Amino acid sequence: MTDPTLSPLTRLTQNGALLRQDISDRACVIETTIDTLLPPTTGGDARLLEAMRYATLGGGKRLRGYLAVTTAGLFDIPQAQAARVAAAVEMLHAYSLVHDDLPAMDDDDMRRGQPSTHRKFDEATAILAGDALQTKAFEILAASATHASADVRIDLISAFAEASGAAGMVGGQMIDMDGEGRALPLEEVRHLHALKTGCLIRYSAEAGAILGQASPDLRQRLRSYGTRIGAAFQIADDILDTTATAEELGKTAGKDEASGKSTFVALLGIDGARAEAARLTEEAIADLAPFGARADRLRDLACYVIERRN
Amino acid sequence: MTDPTLSPLTRLTQNGALLRQDISDRACVIETTIDTLLPPTTGGDARLLEAMRYATLGGGKRLRGYLAVTTAGLFDIPQAQAARVAAAVEMLHAYSLVHDDLPAMDDDDMRRGQPSTHRKFDEATAILAGDALQTKAFEILAASATHASADVRIDLISAFAEASGAAGMVGGQMIDMDGEGRALPLEEVRHLHALKTGCLIRYSAEAGAILGQASPDLRQRLRSYGTRIGAAFQIADDILDTTATAEELGKTAGKDEASGKSTFVALLGIDGARAEAARLTEEAIADLAPFGARADRLRDLACYVIERRN
Repeated sequence: MTDPTLSPLTRLTQNGALLRQDISDRACVIETTIDTLLPPTTGGDARLLEAMRYATLGGGKRLRGYLAVTTAGLFDIPQAQAARVAAAVEMLHAYSLVHDDLPAMDDDDMRRGQPSTHRKFDEATAILAGDALQTKAFEILAASATHASADVRIDLISAFAEASGAAGMVGGQMIDMDGEGRALPLEEVRHLHALKTGCLIRYSAEAGAILGQASPDLRQRLRSYGTRIGAAFQIADDILDTTATAEELGKTAGKDEASGKSTFVALLGIDGARAEAARLTEEAIADLAPFGARADRLRDLACYVIERRN
Repeated sequence: MTDPTLSPLTRLTQNGALLRQDISDRACVIETTIDTLLPPTTGGDARLLEAMRYATLGGGKRLRGYLAVTTAGLFDIPQAQAARVAAAVEMLHAYSLVHDDLPAMDDDDMRRGQPSTHRKFDEATAILAGDALQTKAFEILAASATHASADVRIDLISAFAEASGAAGMVGGQMIDMDGEGRALPLEEVRHLHALKTGCLIRYSAEAGAILGQASPDLRQRLRSYGTRIGAAFQIADDILDTTATAEELGKTAGKDEASGKSTFVALLGIDGARAEAARLTEEAIADLAPFGARADRLRDLACYVIERRN
């Protein structure tokens, strides 16, 4: 087990290569799983499937999916089984990006260095592809192919709906839209991000515990870990938006500031934001104590989310 | 039991008052259930909840919900239990209308005689309210408050996802958008409506059988009944769009023709469309044979969908 008190940078200097390899390996499995779950068609729905695949495949580190597969591994759940849950989470994430990018929302033309879905296709197709991706995510969690009991699948679905609906991701996006152009206080910014991006990241970490039918304590530990790295992730995102170039990000840089969004950097300053992210990372690592050395990659990941460049 | 070979009009002359009362009673219970499941809030998500409630509450005959509650009654499922499933179906239907009405889709300013959701609020809110309504529908089906076993709930969710996703309702809407402005052959129009409106109506009729853990034969009978009245419903809609006034419809009349959509009336003529709807109604009534007199209201409903004025 790697010393859990190491600084994030030292930790990544030691274990960064292992983590990157693990993320890359898992992303490959998740990508293949999504590809299998969204087969292209030649019928009347060909264009819809093409847009769903465009929005979901071919990109990203799959951090949410990585969390689901890796936390499931703590409970000896086979990767192929957890990869289906990871695929569902990634599809839900993809649907939220497709809708967020729409002209009536954040109006983004680029995503992962490519035209966003409504630019590649058209707005109607993007709306419908997002809708169908959400449906597909629930369908996958309900399917017996997860090899989980009906009770476990219901648990997966209930927590998923809570994390992604009006009291979770979509609710956060609504607060974000409402708050655009006016200064939000720090607590409101925290709350908005806890909903908008935090809930789904927390769910991804919790999903392994649900699949593994973990004790309430271990499940709560992974929820807490997920909540904390979710918050750290968002702060790191705000820092990146200020410091990175568009090329590094694969999307427009400096956009938050230009659109008058309240960011952690604006509220805490760069140094204050970095300190808060580092504190969250430490606490997230502490959450993993009961799992011992098996959770080393998850500890590395907590460091990685605040040190990444894109 | 009312003679199943009666003509639709004769049947409604005899039983219409009973059916209308039953629809009205059930709609009241379903409305109350939705109201309870979507409580207004005062927090940051107040606007989102308000839009979700606006899109879902206060209107309509709740025919999909009526089907779910009434078919469940054939298997002695308590109304309160089935009403939750009905509420989920109505929320899914409402989300599809909210997204269909968007400028990038059908661009409709009116719905049920009121401003459509994006006109009452704004586009971003309408997109998010639709998204969250879909999530909520799945959440309700997963909840233990349906008093169904986890296996039954998984069955409800799987069939629901199939009916509403890329291979169902959303797939149909995509074909509809693609086909706008060009003449589609009859078989393609049938297929598009079987997906766009048919799948959810079929699911509504099937939901009672799922809740009631019906035999495969009885479940198939209700699926078939639902498929047929769904098709008849759409043909009747096309006829109404040609013959009724905007005041009767509560939405713009003659819109299909103006937008160049291929309709059953355009393809079959008014008389041909009426004959096909009547044939489907007869077949739907025949599907109900094993249920005897208990299914009389469902027989009346099959007649009602082709004789309604709005």
